[in-house]
Amino acid sequence: MNPSPDSLAEPDQVRPEVRGFTAYVPGLSIDEIKEKYGLARVIKMASNENPLGTSPLVRETLRRHAASAFRYPQGGNPRLVTALARHHGVSADRVVVGNGSDEIIDLLLRIRAVPGRHNVVTFDPCFSIYPLQARLCGVEVRRLPLRKDFSQPLRDLRTLADDRTALVFVTTPDNPSGYCPPADAVLELARSLPPGCLLVVDEAYMDFVDDEAATSLLRRAAELPNTAFLRTFSKSFGLAGLRLGYGVLPPRLAEYYRRVRLPFSVNILAEEAGLSALEDATFRAATLRVVREGRRQLTEGLRALGCTVYASQANFLMFAPPSGRQAPSLFEALLARGIIIRPLKSYALPHLLRVSVGTDEENAAFLQCCKEILA
Amino acid sequence: MNPSPDSLAEPDQVRPEVRGFTAYVPGLSIDEIKEKYGLARVIKMASNENPLGTSPLVRETLRRHAASAFRYPQGGNPRLVTALARHHGVSADRVVVGNGSDEIIDLLLRIRAVPGRHNVVTFDPCFSIYPLQARLCGVEVRRLPLRKDFSQPLRDLRTLADDRTALVFVTTPDNPSGYCPPADAVLELARSLPPGCLLVVDEAYMDFVDDEAATSLLRRAAELPNTAFLRTFSKSFGLAGLRLGYGVLPPRLAEYYRRVRLPFSVNILAEEAGLSALEDATFRAATLRVVREGRRQLTEGLRALGCTVYASQANFLMFAPPSGRQAPSLFEALLARGIIIRPLKSYALPHLLRVSVGTDEENAAFLQCCKEILA
Repeated sequence: MNPSPDSLAEPDQVRPEVRGFTAYVPGLSIDEIKEKYGLARVIKMASNENPLGTSPLVRETLRRHAASAFRYPQGGNPRLVTALARHHGVSADRVVVGNGSDEIIDLLLRIRAVPGRHNVVTFDPCFSIYPLQARLCGVEVRRLPLRKDFSQPLRDLRTLADDRTALVFVTTPDNPSGYCPPADAVLELARSLPPGCLLVVDEAYMDFVDDEAATSLLRRAAELPNTAFLRTFSKSFGLAGLRLGYGVLPPRLAEYYRRVRLPFSVNILAEEAGLSALEDATFRAATLRVVREGRRQLTEGLRALGCTVYASQANFLMFAPPSGRQAPSLFEALLARGIIIRPLKSYALPHLLRVSVGTDEENAAFLQCCKEILA
Repeated sequence: MNPSPDSLAEPDQVRPEVRGFTAYVPGLSIDEIKEKYGLARVIKMASNENPLGTSPLVRETLRRHAASAFRYPQGGNPRLVTALARHHGVSADRVVVGNGSDEIIDLLLRIRAVPGRHNVVTFDPCFSIYPLQARLCGVEVRRLPLRKDFSQPLRDLRTLADDRTALVFVTTPDNPSGYCPPADAVLELARSLPPGCLLVVDEAYMDFVDDEAATSLLRRAAELPNTAFLRTFSKSFGLAGLRLGYGVLPPRLAEYYRRVRLPFSVNILAEEAGLSALEDATFRAATLRVVREGRRQLTEGLRALGCTVYASQANFLMFAPPSGRQAPSLFEALLARGIIIRPLKSYALPHLLRVSVGTDEENAAFLQCCKEILA
């Protein structure tokens, strides 16, 4: 008898969806760059991390809880959920936490989208995790190009959605451009989607906008039964390495999220650090001030050097050197001088670069190096 | 026009597979138990954590790296992979790491098993994550009951596997029984499976066996092209709270794992702690000594009280009180005295209990309380 087309012929045979994945290529670590270029100091402005580092309160908490590393975390992280609900003024039955927002994105897909039947709608370019996890789930991805100026044609996104669209992903402010759509446009999209479609508004960078109260719809979650919001501790809270994301979801989806989530996916130190980060209002205010000021400093400085800078409401800027062909060489020359920024080749934007806002001193060092290189 | 059966009617509608999931119910925390029963001290022997706590070297490492919490981890964790390959004497291209073994179990399923087509074979009872993640993947789960004495009918497991069996999961030593099959029986199973089937040998508790060299097949991974091995830092390495598991896989599967894995799923402190835990041979040797001695102490002590104790090669014991109906009341009475053990209701074994091996003093306190309660 011949094997059926569904039979597995080899023990290392993989699903068809998996074959096309390419491996993540880790960048050089700071230590490796120091060694390679013989540098004493390296400035990393590549990953949108917090320019002020880790909050003093969080550092103290991590040291105090080091001895608890042998204990399993409390399943479901109820203390953190309660604290987040209070922080955002939303009901706790909407709040979920994950091992980074990545886990929440993945589980929302797995909860809602039936492989081979449903689809997902998002922009192109977008945060790579949306299409990657959708593909891993066996779900079709429909992508609408951003406008040439990287603004989001939100009204047109609706035309890609049908009654099999399980999720629509929108990032606001957007990555890598920093573009931030007005709240009304997001609201209009939410209201225009087909009845079965969930809008996921990824607000990873929302606290950096000039006027969060006017720009974020998160506080109005209860009015929006088809909208989920994602936030993260990786940016303004300064906990990227601990992996802690959270979501504010329609209550029934939050309930299912809690059911399917691996109960210990958030590590015990992330939970403690997250609680302390929420308490350290001083550190957070300082972070937002430094980012907003640095954003202006970098925008003006790069424009003065003849670069095209895209208006950003996030903690990074996307820009093009005076000639687009200079982007790879500018990246390399900065690296040799000990400054790491982000080339956007992986977003299919090889003529553009992204720089994370650093401290005043780091921003000045970056601009000075750009000036020397571009001269 | 009527909606098709595939259409999504509500924004919080979920996949059929997801509907049947029940929420994880977190146990009371140590602090909550102290408060509820008015206790100054609580002994936790419920989660197979390390009786000696967190290694001194790891605690120092965590304190030293607290300030790095704001940095993203190095994608793919190459340093840890290299250290693990050296530790086990296997080739680095076989080694993968995950946010606990849970992530590796989930990704092996997602890499290999096509939803609605392939199946997974395991025992009943077994570690709950195997069937839960398989269900979440939309993959059929076939389960063979353990023998009445909780030994594993490994030869019969083969009869459940066919050419659509993507994975067979076996835990050795087994949880919750502590039973450990001879290496030859696992080897025979590996050799008898259909050609397309991957055997996953979960060795979470393997380092606690009396003779690891004679019992584990991990060092022979290169001879077994259809076998994957799972290990964890949660037990003998004392890092349960940091969530760090690893696998030794056939190289092609390891390559695909690296491709589909979320690159930052292992947090930055887990990686540093894992590297230190591998170095702290003194702590690890002390852990293994305490567990092996405590296992004897608890086995003899419980038998002297008339309990049925199942022979265990792990860092826990499964036992029945003199009358099986006493299990829930013994659990409750121990809790009121400040000793937490694990009732096995969730394994559908309400007449049995599981106790993790503690320190000499904790074991003695547990036995003394059992004696008083059962008297």
